[in-house]
Amino acid sequence: MKGDVNMEQDLRLDTGYLEGFVSENDLGSIFPEVKKAHALLTDRTGPGNDFLGWMDLPESTTADMLGDIEECADRMKRNSDIVIIIGIGGSYLGAKAAIEMMAPRLGEKKVLFAGHNLCGGYLEEFLKMVKSRDRDISVNVISKSGTTTEPAIAFRVVEDFMRKRYGAAGLKDRIVCTTDKKRGALRSMADAMGYRSFVIPEDVGGRFSVLTAAGLLPVACADINIRGIIAGARRARERSASCDPDGNISYKYAAVRNILYRKGKNIEIFSNFDHGFHYVAEWWKQLFGESEGKGEKGIFPASCDFTTDLHSMGQWIQAGSRNIFETFLIEDREDSDCPIPGKEEDPDGLNYLSGKQVSFVNKQAYQATAAAHFEGGVPNSTIFLPERSAFCLGQLFYFLEKAVAVSAYVLGVNPFDQPGVDSYKKKMFEFLGKPGH
Amino acid sequence: MKGDVNMEQDLRLDTGYLEGFVSENDLGSIFPEVKKAHALLTDRTGPGNDFLGWMDLPESTTADMLGDIEECADRMKRNSDIVIIIGIGGSYLGAKAAIEMMAPRLGEKKVLFAGHNLCGGYLEEFLKMVKSRDRDISVNVISKSGTTTEPAIAFRVVEDFMRKRYGAAGLKDRIVCTTDKKRGALRSMADAMGYRSFVIPEDVGGRFSVLTAAGLLPVACADINIRGIIAGARRARERSASCDPDGNISYKYAAVRNILYRKGKNIEIFSNFDHGFHYVAEWWKQLFGESEGKGEKGIFPASCDFTTDLHSMGQWIQAGSRNIFETFLIEDREDSDCPIPGKEEDPDGLNYLSGKQVSFVNKQAYQATAAAHFEGGVPNSTIFLPERSAFCLGQLFYFLEKAVAVSAYVLGVNPFDQPGVDSYKKKMFEFLGKPGH
Repeated sequence: MKGDVNMEQDLRLDTGYLEGFVSENDLGSIFPEVKKAHALLTDRTGPGNDFLGWMDLPESTTADMLGDIEECADRMKRNSDIVIIIGIGGSYLGAKAAIEMMAPRLGEKKVLFAGHNLCGGYLEEFLKMVKSRDRDISVNVISKSGTTTEPAIAFRVVEDFMRKRYGAAGLKDRIVCTTDKKRGALRSMADAMGYRSFVIPEDVGGRFSVLTAAGLLPVACADINIRGIIAGARRARERSASCDPDGNISYKYAAVRNILYRKGKNIEIFSNFDHGFHYVAEWWKQLFGESEGKGEKGIFPASCDFTTDLHSMGQWIQAGSRNIFETFLIEDREDSDCPIPGKEEDPDGLNYLSGKQVSFVNKQAYQATAAAHFEGGVPNSTIFLPERSAFCLGQLFYFLEKAVAVSAYVLGVNPFDQPGVDSYKKKMFEFLGKPGH
Repeated sequence: MKGDVNMEQDLRLDTGYLEGFVSENDLGSIFPEVKKAHALLTDRTGPGNDFLGWMDLPESTTADMLGDIEECADRMKRNSDIVIIIGIGGSYLGAKAAIEMMAPRLGEKKVLFAGHNLCGGYLEEFLKMVKSRDRDISVNVISKSGTTTEPAIAFRVVEDFMRKRYGAAGLKDRIVCTTDKKRGALRSMADAMGYRSFVIPEDVGGRFSVLTAAGLLPVACADINIRGIIAGARRARERSASCDPDGNISYKYAAVRNILYRKGKNIEIFSNFDHGFHYVAEWWKQLFGESEGKGEKGIFPASCDFTTDLHSMGQWIQAGSRNIFETFLIEDREDSDCPIPGKEEDPDGLNYLSGKQVSFVNKQAYQATAAAHFEGGVPNSTIFLPERSAFCLGQLFYFLEKAVAVSAYVLGVNPFDQPGVDSYKKKMFEFLGKPGH
């Protein structure tokens, strides 16, 4: 089981490279707004207050619920070589982020994703791969409604394939639905077919659902310690409970980004130095973009994978338009991973690094980048994960959820709706000739 | 061999969704500037004119040169199960973009990349995978200087491993260097060790090097038709030779983006509807970001993979700050890939799509998205690839290279330098204690 719980390991927010961009005065001025946003959340009186279920998940998720999820994951792993997760948006990104961060990234994977796009070629190849390997599969399909086009199509295709392989009777052992408690097409299908099911609570929006079964079951299938994740979220919940301007790093982050936004920094780049963190940034983009991007407002959420992208976006960030700020996500611990071999001669001039770990060089690259970008006019902060553990990941999820809720209220928008996401769908259903459109 | 050459298949730029944002008048007003930029390129009198080698590559790359590359690729494929490409930035993104677009994306890959990051964990796992499979490997290391930290470290690590496996004498058959003709550490190593080598011409910058051996050898190793790519580039070169405001789509694209930038649209989102195009956008980001992001100017280059990202960035794009415009990259041809099965009952309401291909639904999603974003206040254009072929890909590369050169001149910056990329490196070398820093 990956990711033990070490309660000493608290997330840290370093704001050292904001000097000259965000003053104590700025922070003092915005504090009353943060306090007001805090009250809207705590009193549950703000816009979108019927979607505050995520706030209590760290406490309301019982050991029994976690036990059910673990038991189900164990069964899926036991009777399958591959577990297929079908979902998109909030029913995809949290689990994907957790798995890519915590579990190895190259080579064959046990948990695979489908239904997160409409690439026919992807689905075709996906099925071909599953068939050619002749491996047993299970499926967890995740959708609040059951009618979201991408996962609905993928589920039809995969269920059809499984019916042929396992027979109608065999499906019950291999299909698990995560959906609404009472409503929707997927709930009806699960009930009619007798598929096992888990619930996404009605008052938890998709982008805030990673700590429900929507995130936890796939993550458990990838052998990640979900109790550690919930324990971490509980820790972050405690730490962000009071409106303390210094100790509450969720609020500090929310305050800083609003201050920068008001000073014309309208793009935030969420940057990592570890390819395993790529999908954390994708999850973050949905969380922040969908919560804040409305009413012709909002910081544009972008991301970079360094050092890869220092060799593509580095020039722009260092010296392009000065309308950006940066938030780094960094694992604080140095790994012993891959030592740099010495050479008798020194043809590439690297002998000064002989015996050093590659991750040591990477850490220096991060420190140099944060300093250089700051000097180039890019204010930046760093979220430090003390280590790559389920406990730290759980903290990170909750820390960012709490931050975006307060940040959006300070911005003056409802953090919990998404009035724009249906615009293209309506048109698409017209083009497709969907009955009733 | 993937990607035959069909000379009928010309790239198309659709600017239908610019109405109300870019007028005929705007285009007329900017045309003299485009004309001036065209003259700077054609007369080779503009800033950075010692880096114009890319302009002639479609003509100067002879059949003999292509034959050498193909022969070398064949040999590498014959004596290895895995070909490892070591490179970063311009020595990575072009080949990666071409391979991910043209070759299948799931399952085991024959061509793998390393040296494009400093993740010790990645390199460690990479080696473990190579070792555990006990497969034969060849390496193509690509670096103009040979001292860029990431590929230099990866090459040291991989060469060390290969020396142990194949012996010093065996290296010569398995290592190919792509580097400067005369200078640099990698050139010296290649000469000293007798490694086979290919040349990146001195007057071709990294981000413009995809049509040199830096891009073509890895691409040939992935069984992609490099003659098709060069033929496509030649076609795009012809089409962008004269300063015709309508027929020259490179210039049209350059004009449109500068007009939009001057009207406050400071973010461009390069969006696709096919996961295979993801790395084309990454290549585009370097090409445009590094060419234009200087002097505190430049459009911020971002990208989206739809429909995946419609469920994360969709809300922001539809209704957030109105400082964005979008450029879609779309394959025009509809594939027969994955038909949607019918169901006796219709529990998910998808029976109206029974028998339709997933790619048909995807095409409607694109059309709906372009229309909805336009109505939401996001001007957008579409680059149509008639089909996923080497010929179209070659056109795309050259079309965008020509566009960015003109676009940057119109913006008033040198398209061919990158004065900011060394800032973090200097600091990093200090932190690392590199001799002389």
